[in-house]
Amino acid sequence: MTAATLTYSFLGPQGTFTEAALEKMPGGDSCQRVPTASVLSALTMVDTGEADGAVVPIENSVEGGVTATLDAVSVAHDLHIVAEALVPISFVLVSKEPLALSAIRSVATHSHAWAQVRRWAEATVPTAEYVPASSTAAAAHGLLAEHPIADAAICAPLVAQQLGLHIIATGIEDVSGAVTRFVLTAKPGPIPAMTGADKTTIMIPLPEDRPGALMEILEHFSTRGVNLCRIESRPTGNGLGSYFFSIDLEGHIQEDRVADALAGIHRISPKLRFLGSYPRADKKPQQVLPEVSEAAFSAAKTWIASLQDR
Amino acid sequence: MTAATLTYSFLGPQGTFTEAALEKMPGGDSCQRVPTASVLSALTMVDTGEADGAVVPIENSVEGGVTATLDAVSVAHDLHIVAEALVPISFVLVSKEPLALSAIRSVATHSHAWAQVRRWAEATVPTAEYVPASSTAAAAHGLLAEHPIADAAICAPLVAQQLGLHIIATGIEDVSGAVTRFVLTAKPGPIPAMTGADKTTIMIPLPEDRPGALMEILEHFSTRGVNLCRIESRPTGNGLGSYFFSIDLEGHIQEDRVADALAGIHRISPKLRFLGSYPRADKKPQQVLPEVSEAAFSAAKTWIASLQDR
Amino acid sequence: MTAATLTYSFLGPQGTFTEAALEKMPGGDSCQRVPTASVLSALTMVDTGEADGAVVPIENSVEGGVTATLDAVSVAHDLHIVAEALVPISFVLVSKEPLALSAIRSVATHSHAWAQVRRWAEATVPTAEYVPASSTAAAAHGLLAEHPIADAAICAPLVAQQLGLHIIATGIEDVSGAVTRFVLTAKPGPIPAMTGADKTTIMIPLPEDRPGALMEILEHFSTRGVNLCRIESRPTGNGLGSYFFSIDLEGHIQEDRVADALAGIHRISPKLRFLGSYPRADKKPQQVLPEVSEAAFSAAKTWIASLQDR
Amino acid sequence: MTAATLTYSFLGPQGTFTEAALEKMPGGDSCQRVPTASVLSALTMVDTGEADGAVVPIENSVEGGVTATLDAVSVAHDLHIVAEALVPISFVLVSKEPLALSAIRSVATHSHAWAQVRRWAEATVPTAEYVPASSTAAAAHGLLAEHPIADAAICAPLVAQQLGLHIIATGIEDVSGAVTRFVLTAKPGPIPAMTGADKTTIMIPLPEDRPGALMEILEHFSTRGVNLCRIESRPTGNGLGSYFFSIDLEGHIQEDRVADALAGIHRISPKLRFLGSYPRADKKPQQVLPEVSEAAFSAAKTWIASLQDR
Repeated sequence: MTAATLTYSFLGPQGTFTEAALEKMPGGDSCQRVPTASVLSALTMVDTGEADGAVVPIENSVEGGVTATLDAVSVAHDLHIVAEALVPISFVLVSKEPLALSAIRSVATHSHAWAQVRRWAEATVPTAEYVPASSTAAAAHGLLAEHPIADAAICAPLVAQQLGLHIIATGIEDVSGAVTRFVLTAKPGPIPAMTGADKTTIMIPLPEDRPGALMEILEHFSTRGVNLCRIESRPTGNGLGSYFFSIDLEGHIQEDRVADALAGIHRISPKLRFLGSYPRADKKPQQVLPEVSEAAFSAAKTWIASLQDR
Repeated sequence: MTAATLTYSFLGPQGTFTEAALEKMPGGDSCQRVPTASVLSALTMVDTGEADGAVVPIENSVEGGVTATLDAVSVAHDLHIVAEALVPISFVLVSKEPLALSAIRSVATHSHAWAQVRRWAEATVPTAEYVPASSTAAAAHGLLAEHPIADAAICAPLVAQQLGLHIIATGIEDVSGAVTRFVLTAKPGPIPAMTGADKTTIMIPLPEDRPGALMEILEHFSTRGVNLCRIESRPTGNGLGSYFFSIDLEGHIQEDRVADALAGIHRISPKLRFLGSYPRADKKPQQVLPEVSEAAFSAAKTWIASLQDR
Repeated sequence: MTAATLTYSFLGPQGTFTEAALEKMPGGDSCQRVPTASVLSALTMVDTGEADGAVVPIENSVEGGVTATLDAVSVAHDLHIVAEALVPISFVLVSKEPLALSAIRSVATHSHAWAQVRRWAEATVPTAEYVPASSTAAAAHGLLAEHPIADAAICAPLVAQQLGLHIIATGIEDVSGAVTRFVLTAKPGPIPAMTGADKTTIMIPLPEDRPGALMEILEHFSTRGVNLCRIESRPTGNGLGSYFFSIDLEGHIQEDRVADALAGIHRISPKLRFLGSYPRADKKPQQVLPEVSEAAFSAAKTWIASLQDR
Repeated sequence: MTAATLTYSFLGPQGTFTEAALEKMPGGDSCQRVPTASVLSALTMVDTGEADGAVVPIENSVEGGVTATLDAVSVAHDLHIVAEALVPISFVLVSKEPLALSAIRSVATHSHAWAQVRRWAEATVPTAEYVPASSTAAAAHGLLAEHPIADAAICAPLVAQQLGLHIIATGIEDVSGAVTRFVLTAKPGPIPAMTGADKTTIMIPLPEDRPGALMEILEHFSTRGVNLCRIESRPTGNGLGSYFFSIDLEGHIQEDRVADALAGIHRISPKLRFLGSYPRADKKPQQVLPEVSEAAFSAAKTWIASLQDR
């Protein structure tokens, strides 16, 4: 596919942190962007072929959708992750026209965003009324409506820039340095080439709900020196006591230690799903112990073959 | 404390699934209820002594807040979980006055709820416009405003009943049988008595970010036959590669196998935090293997003492 | 090689339990037998080509040699085990001519054998003097010397029959039912075909002397469902704190679960030595769990290939 | 008990390596020494009260007895190990009167000793006939008999000195630097005080014969940072597939990490037997990781108590 012809759906509306993530994805700067009302809608557009990829939050996002993404990608859709991006979670206070802080009587934003700027708001605009919006971007758009929903909005820098809003304050989040992770999903196809700083995402149904079952799975990683970046147990929806694990691990399916670990887990949980190998957004190179290097795997295979072929 | 004098804060507004959970909590039927705008606000009221307890979502909630709860309870606040409740996630379609489906031009609800009834909505009210609200309860309240926000709302049964709204349809969620888990948090105090069907919630900082570190922690559970109900890795916010695990396990801190496992983990991760032992909402009794029964622990202690005291 | 031309060395002299084991080995009934004075001598004859195989004790033998065998096979010689045999350890009391128990004033045997019939001897021939011999077979031979070493001897049934001695009593061992295990070693060559009831013997140098090092090795067996029949740590002779493990495991190198486990251990201990796969003497068929069956390995490989080749 | 009144039995006859070990044991220089014909006899004298202690080989001994010791101490007798000693395995060639090497036509010794000096013998006394003896000490004594059993004997330095024999050559073993380990066993009583360089010996019946059973046991050591010095699986004599493990570990029963590990194993294998904690012969101090130090155990206990007592 040519980058020029790509269409990416994303959790909208325009100007959200998700769209900021989209811009960092491969092909993101030149693709056609389609905002959707929900994570599921974004993913469904890929299923149906209306989009080539969907950009959705996968970790703690200010605008939610994380759990929906995990469950949708893991269970409902046959999609693969082909890229990830990290977006700093930083808010700006904006208005349509320049406005003094003391003149602000109402502030619109998403409830999650409001929770993250509460201390700043209590100190800076203590008398302003909070007006809930369905997203931070919707709050920004609401300033431009015929009947503006509020005097000011709290939103991502991107939407402020897109709409040409007046920026009253920046970096108003109570805790600085937070980032949120987003992924680009696509239909299963060629796996992105190994870079030496890759992640692999998988979904493992727990074979049995008993002490030690998770450990049996993890042993397959530890005996191959595979480090985990993230693990979450999630109910399968098939009743109490039935779980799957959503896991990100360091490494690429083309690496022996990853392939060998996944093969081991496939034996005990054959419904294991591979959800993609892709470059890490932080480009942190992998530390591979000598005993699980490609050379060590190759030497072991050669040795076994020398015995079996005798 | 006397039940009559209790005050519980909860993630509001009135009529949310969280309030439905509050009604199931110990003391919930007779307490004074204070809705708050965010999970953090609800928890903070307990910190400051304005509330005796706070009811907040801890797993996959239609109205979000889960990640915020986990992080807040685990990291920021010195709070303990003293009870949990499960609430079925079922939606109703309501209006102020009786109204035919065909007459509905707009439907208000929270975006997460909208995602969960999309298929029903596309089949039943395909031409209705979606009006985002900051919560399902806010959508219901919005029908009674001077300028109603929509013709109909999708909300929890509780708020429909509280406001005396007309119920057009029930059980409209696309996937039935979902439940969401809520917890009652309080300041550290006496731990709820053991019932034989208990959970314990802990937070374990990962001592080192290397292959096998998680497994070393889990071995302490498996060698004591302690089953896990939930595990999630969460970034600590102290930079890349630094995680903690939020874990629910089966059993009560007063049980030897739980206490022994936690003591073992304390040695390798001394900043381990105990966040409470409390009765399971599903009352499912624990299956304790003979080798980790109280009798087995007692026999082992007696044997060791007989050797050491010789 | 033709069975007719085979030469087997064995821990002699003629008539020992080791020769009884030789008769049970493949080719043992028709081979040329060469008794040697020590385990090392027997093994050395194979090294030098003077023998095609050597039969030596590998577990608890009444006439010793076990530790020597283990160390010699594991460390010093490039030999493989190609068969094993189990011999019941049962003793007979013999004399040159028929003799009443009350007439026996002296009894010759090996000191280990004497230890195993002590209770019987104290009850039956309490006044007889014990005459040590270098083996039970030597004791039997000593009855036929010009100057007999004793009135009677305690030996294996085989030598009594070979020499035509008079059998006074049989089954005189204090503990009945004991068996000793012997192995047939040969120069590395074709590995005996898989029978479904096989053993594999390996030698694993401990990569590091620290808590958990052995467990890391054993995880490679447990994650492939490979059961161990025997494990012994042995000093390598390279100084304190330096060990190897001598291990018998269930299964054949041609089975995926065995090959995969050995490949895993090869990565952490590349000086691992394969000492042979061979049929079990007890013919007990292997219990292979479904998750480590050849089918499970094959399915996992196919799945991984389908991902990697995309 | 007063050292002056102690009686120690040992695997005789006088002048063996076992007697050399006895001299290194606590009380060994002043005790009354009783040689016995077998390991079992030595141990039985302690059972019956005829001896206060028995000195027997426990690892690779030139004169055998190791397996017998392990099985006897582990299974049959209620004895504890209270001390260990290491004896260099070095041989001397002796005669009654001074004798030239070329004049030696026969050499007596135990078959295991002969195996260990074969290369030297083939190079130095190639034409001498080998005369088997029931022990190296018996060979030495045999030189002084009315009818000497040989011209020369190969034995331990101790017996040569005891008998005033002429020493023709020293250090004639083919491999130098070997040591053998011996133990002093006694009836269960006060455990030797902790020195900081101790060993503990235990016997663990395998609870089930299946993949992973041994690993479950070893996890109890690794989760407490307890290092193993020796492990051997031994058939219990109760039929096929039934094993126990004989294990030496670093540390003393009075240390928390050892006591905690043994308590854990007691739960899964309650017939576990404690066979003694005693000072290491090599006095090598233990390396205790911070997370399993006494301080770490104490801190964990205090933390758990603070939770349980709330």
